Amino acid sequence: VAGRAGSVFLLTDYGLVDEFAGVVRASVLRHAPGVPVIDLTHGVTPFDVRGGALGLVRAAPHLGPGVVLAVVDPGVATSRRAVAVSVAQATGDGPGYFVGPDNGLLPWAVDALGGARGAVALPPASADATGATFDGRDVFAPAAARLWQGVSLADLGDELDPDTLVRLPSPRTTVGAGTLETEVQWVDRFGNVQLAAGPDDAAAAALGVELEVVMPVTGVSRGVVWVAAFAALGPGALGLLVDANGRLALVCDRQSAATVLDVHAGDIVTLRRVPDGASP
Amino acid sequence: VAGRAGSVFLLTDYGLVDEFAGVVRASVLRHAPGVPVIDLTHGVTPFDVRGGALGLVRAAPHLGPGVVLAVVDPGVATSRRAVAVSVAQATGDGPGYFVGPDNGLLPWAVDALGGARGAVALPPASADATGATFDGRDVFAPAAARLWQGVSLADLGDELDPDTLVRLPSPRTTVGAGTLETEVQWVDRFGNVQLAAGPDDAAAAALGVELEVVMPVTGVSRGVVWVAAFAALGPGALGLLVDANGRLALVCDRQSAATVLDVHAGDIVTLRRVPDGASP
Amino acid sequence: VAGRAGSVFLLTDYGLVDEFAGVVRASVLRHAPGVPVIDLTHGVTPFDVRGGALGLVRAAPHLGPGVVLAVVDPGVATSRRAVAVSVAQATGDGPGYFVGPDNGLLPWAVDALGGARGAVALPPASADATGATFDGRDVFAPAAARLWQGVSLADLGDELDPDTLVRLPSPRTTVGAGTLETEVQWVDRFGNVQLAAGPDDAAAAALGVELEVVMPVTGVSRGVVWVAAFAALGPGALGLLVDANGRLALVCDRQSAATVLDVHAGDIVTLRRVPDGASP
Repeated sequence: VAGRAGSVFLLTDYGLVDEFAGVVRASVLRHAPGVPVIDLTHGVTPFDVRGGALGLVRAAPHLGPGVVLAVVDPGVATSRRAVAVSVAQATGDGPGYFVGPDNGLLPWAVDALGGARGAVALPPASADATGATFDGRDVFAPAAARLWQGVSLADLGDELDPDTLVRLPSPRTTVGAGTLETEVQWVDRFGNVQLAAGPDDAAAAALGVELEVVMPVTGVSRGVVWVAAFAALGPGALGLLVDANGRLALVCDRQSAATVLDVHAGDIVTLRRVPDGASP
Repeated sequence: VAGRAGSVFLLTDYGLVDEFAGVVRASVLRHAPGVPVIDLTHGVTPFDVRGGALGLVRAAPHLGPGVVLAVVDPGVATSRRAVAVSVAQATGDGPGYFVGPDNGLLPWAVDALGGARGAVALPPASADATGATFDGRDVFAPAAARLWQGVSLADLGDELDPDTLVRLPSPRTTVGAGTLETEVQWVDRFGNVQLAAGPDDAAAAALGVELEVVMPVTGVSRGVVWVAAFAALGPGALGLLVDANGRLALVCDRQSAATVLDVHAGDIVTLRRVPDGASP
Repeated sequence: VAGRAGSVFLLTDYGLVDEFAGVVRASVLRHAPGVPVIDLTHGVTPFDVRGGALGLVRAAPHLGPGVVLAVVDPGVATSRRAVAVSVAQATGDGPGYFVGPDNGLLPWAVDALGGARGAVALPPASADATGATFDGRDVFAPAAARLWQGVSLADLGDELDPDTLVRLPSPRTTVGAGTLETEVQWVDRFGNVQLAAGPDDAAAAALGVELEVVMPVTGVSRGVVWVAAFAALGPGALGLLVDANGRLALVCDRQSAATVLDVHAGDIVTLRRVPDGASP
């Protein structure tokens, strides 16, 4: 496929207060004049590779063609590899390339698009760089720009086996009889609590209609009702729905379910069927 | 009018920490390659339809041609309508279309540009969407993209009477003899306190030159002087000016007037003429 | 050089909660359809001209061609000049123009690109503006747009002598025998503490290999080791490196050095050689 199609999509933990994200945007455009640069987010918690990887996998199916540049990189300037990965099944309707550190940030999103076709290790920033490297600016942005322009992956670095890319442990979900133990993947701005489990897990666990959520540490339980819309819930009531990413989510109406439950990303909660006549 | 002119302008309460805004940006561009996507803001307080509507009406006269996509949508997935509205007097120098939920978010800005010419109800996201809808991504972004491309309003949904669009209660202002009771519309980043009243209201109330502001609840009053520039005020002094949106605003110099006064959006304050010789 | 090349780069203290930045983006695009608008940052601390100027000088060498529009402007609507400055050595690979208030925000970045070739004072917003001016929207954005389009500097306002542009006091660094007193220029999102001093200063002070940092006010000292990468540091250990802007920086690994040291931008810290055998 010839280049110059689609966008360069950015996801980082740089925040928007410093000029880091701005300099990376400028660096992409400087190396590839005319490219649309789209921020997915720069609000990943600093060094939270897992949070970044989960955001990337949620966004991936909804992007158009182009190149994803992702940087959450606590290991900058160590021996961790800088990589560019091509997507196996790229159809022209989704991104064809991912660029970023080899620390687990990229593979889930690549998997969501059909897996990797190839990968290369990007060389370090050139020696004229002063002091510590700003790899977003000096390594990843130029590589993303060149891929967008149609440069081939092989021209950017030494080939590596995509199976050797670092992978994070998968989010945990354990299906029992009438119980579903699952990791909180994400608490969003509205306090919605996205779980690692999906509707198939709920079906496998035969959670049924009446259920409760059991909190970690305290073991406190709260009643939960299946809903289709937030507004179907009364004040303070907890709902369970299949969210717009196809995951189960605990929600309230115009209120933070995460605050009501006092849960955070990484916690393990249990969804449990309520026996007949024992509704909490 | 042929499409592909101008930009798609975004205003939401999605924030910039999660990837929501990024996915909507990508969705617009995926459906309309080449469109400039301009963020007005994603920082509307969650669910604050009124705050979003006020921001939109302030911005509207200063936008170029294109399509405004606005989402502050506590009623997502309920029976509230998703709508697209065309602007009556569109001159090619301002946006011709607004897209968003039918909850009061859009009409003030449409009014500011000359009122509505037509409106349609957008159909829900297609059935292949998994779980709950992310209408910004799945309904509003595609609609805005198609309008930018020149698709006609009628091709996007069923016509509806623009007079049936939901409207919010107007900001309150009451003119008396030497008094002006008015709603705080907006506290900005710098702590400037924008009031619903304009200079005409101040003239109608014959507020004169020496005046004071009376606070809600406590009834405490503070002297206020008319100024043309922030820097004309001494430390801690309160000024009143006609701001860049043509509204009255209470301000301090390099200090938050909202903090000095302890006022918030939605409060009602009273501006009052100080009788001769009784300056506070 | 003909216009319509490169981008318009924005740096302001407007924040991203209000629609200020969005309206400026729209204003630039309205006056110059087709221009790529790149946010460097809108997160400068309100009224912090010095912080904005330092961010601009860090970003400047990494931008492509175009026009920089910078607004941190406590003196808006006073007699401070609004200016546009052309860059002396513009090579087509960096920005050719800077637009903003004449309060010290621009000259350091202009210097970093080779100094000023010319400058003009921009006229105030036209009289049809209602109330107070929003110079970002009404003065700076149109000027930046016109420069991008190829309008000459002389057509935008009255020429002024670039040597009369307001300048901020330079960041302080004092080199002694085995000591280096230097200003904290910047604390970034990750808590890295960028100093005004560079590696040449460290060499001139003969700081050597074993050193400590002495804090302001308390005089407390902490051992510091030279490192090449954050990850080379143990938990809580303080490192010194030459950062990606060529400045010395105090850093920790995945932890805020600024919090560990309790330092802030503007503080003066002392780096001091540790005598043999007296490592702290």
